[in-house]
Amino acid sequence: MTYCCGVLVRDGLVMIADTRTNAGLDNISTFRKLHVFNKPGDRIMAVASAGNLAISQSVLSTLVEGLEDPATGERETLMNAPTMFQAAQRIGRAIRHVNATEGVALKSEDINFDVSFLFGGQIKGSRMRLFMVYPAGNFIECTTDTPYLQIGEHKYGKPVLDRAMHYDVELYEALKTSLISMDSTMRSNLGVGLPIDVLVVRTDVCDADLNHRIEAGEPYFHDLRSRWSAALRAAHKNIPRPPYKNES
Amino acid sequence: MTYCCGVLVRDGLVMIADTRTNAGLDNISTFRKLHVFNKPGDRIMAVASAGNLAISQSVLSTLVEGLEDPATGERETLMNAPTMFQAAQRIGRAIRHVNATEGVALKSEDINFDVSFLFGGQIKGSRMRLFMVYPAGNFIECTTDTPYLQIGEHKYGKPVLDRAMHYDVELYEALKTSLISMDSTMRSNLGVGLPIDVLVVRTDVCDADLNHRIEAGEPYFHDLRSRWSAALRAAHKNIPRPPYKNES
Repeated sequence: MTYCCGVLVRDGLVMIADTRTNAGLDNISTFRKLHVFNKPGDRIMAVASAGNLAISQSVLSTLVEGLEDPATGERETLMNAPTMFQAAQRIGRAIRHVNATEGVALKSEDINFDVSFLFGGQIKGSRMRLFMVYPAGNFIECTTDTPYLQIGEHKYGKPVLDRAMHYDVELYEALKTSLISMDSTMRSNLGVGLPIDVLVVRTDVCDADLNHRIEAGEPYFHDLRSRWSAALRAAHKNIPRPPYKNES
Repeated sequence: MTYCCGVLVRDGLVMIADTRTNAGLDNISTFRKLHVFNKPGDRIMAVASAGNLAISQSVLSTLVEGLEDPATGERETLMNAPTMFQAAQRIGRAIRHVNATEGVALKSEDINFDVSFLFGGQIKGSRMRLFMVYPAGNFIECTTDTPYLQIGEHKYGKPVLDRAMHYDVELYEALKTSLISMDSTMRSNLGVGLPIDVLVVRTDVCDADLNHRIEAGEPYFHDLRSRWSAALRAAHKNIPRPPYKNES
């Protein structure tokens, strides 16, 4: 499994991804799922992936090599995309390219073409944007009403986002909430695990404010997990017992 | 959707179920999913259902009418089952009976045979037990290591159970935790909704300590939801912001 979350607030963008992959329960590894493309001051983009690792890696390699534009002969990559929207379209095109190459053979092995991406960032002169790209290469864009998107194991970490995340949250508050969301997911699904990759981008800077890997045992995240657990236990304890009685 | 949860602790059994059903998003209704079978002092049993409503209702009606034992000619119901284990087997047999009757026609309409049950209770002279019955009629039994079982939309409500539920929890504490679990589920999935049916059974009493429906606007549950929300907001607020900085 995988859990990735992207948050788009007024102050900027947060993207986090775990690194656990598994082929069955008996084959667990660590692979980076958050990939940052950065030309400081000009553009910063990040792609987080979920689903079949062979597919997501092929899509990323295709994007890095670039797909040829049949009209101009130009090799289209994320780094030379004119806009974030067109960059998202290129991810979609790369997904369909990989599906056209590998989809039939995968199907013959009963393997679903299962892949999805979060794609966020900013190109100088236009606004910060965040997208979620589906296996068909179509995508939706994050808006201010619900300022986050998730891929992979999204359910366990959603309640805290729904309660605490809104467009005017301070940027590192948004990171904190994302990390609590990751903690809830890791506690309930062993397929999601440390280390966690984190990217924080401040609006209109076009560079990473933070590009960090949280390793197992890292003190702040360990403390966050303990505090959240203790606070939940206290919150739970402070709610009175139900007063219900059978009507007689 | 549906959310039902059963908890088996030293002091007894808690079962809760929402009542929302939907055929698509545009056809939402209220149906009881928690069914209590009770002969006070002799036995109390409860069946909670998730999945296709037509299937779960047919299974229940089959159990009430009874399936004939081919050897003895006796009509086997829950109320005349000698043990909880054999009662659970009867539920499995009723599921397979309905599948044999309706399964092919459902399949021809591309409708999955989707149904599952929680089954809990006690028969005088033997111990309280709790089972989860699958669509094939096979089942697992709840043990003291993980003293709860869930059917339906189980993910949103699982974290609080994992954190707070254990075998030595007091019975109405277990109900309280179940209600918080239901609240988390209702907040994140519109397919789960009020009213909520609740059953509490004390060990070795073989009668309902509480058989109650929580309606919308009921003060205790409303207060529980507000307190839990406020406590989570406070817990969230009290965690310091991440101190991470890019290494430079």
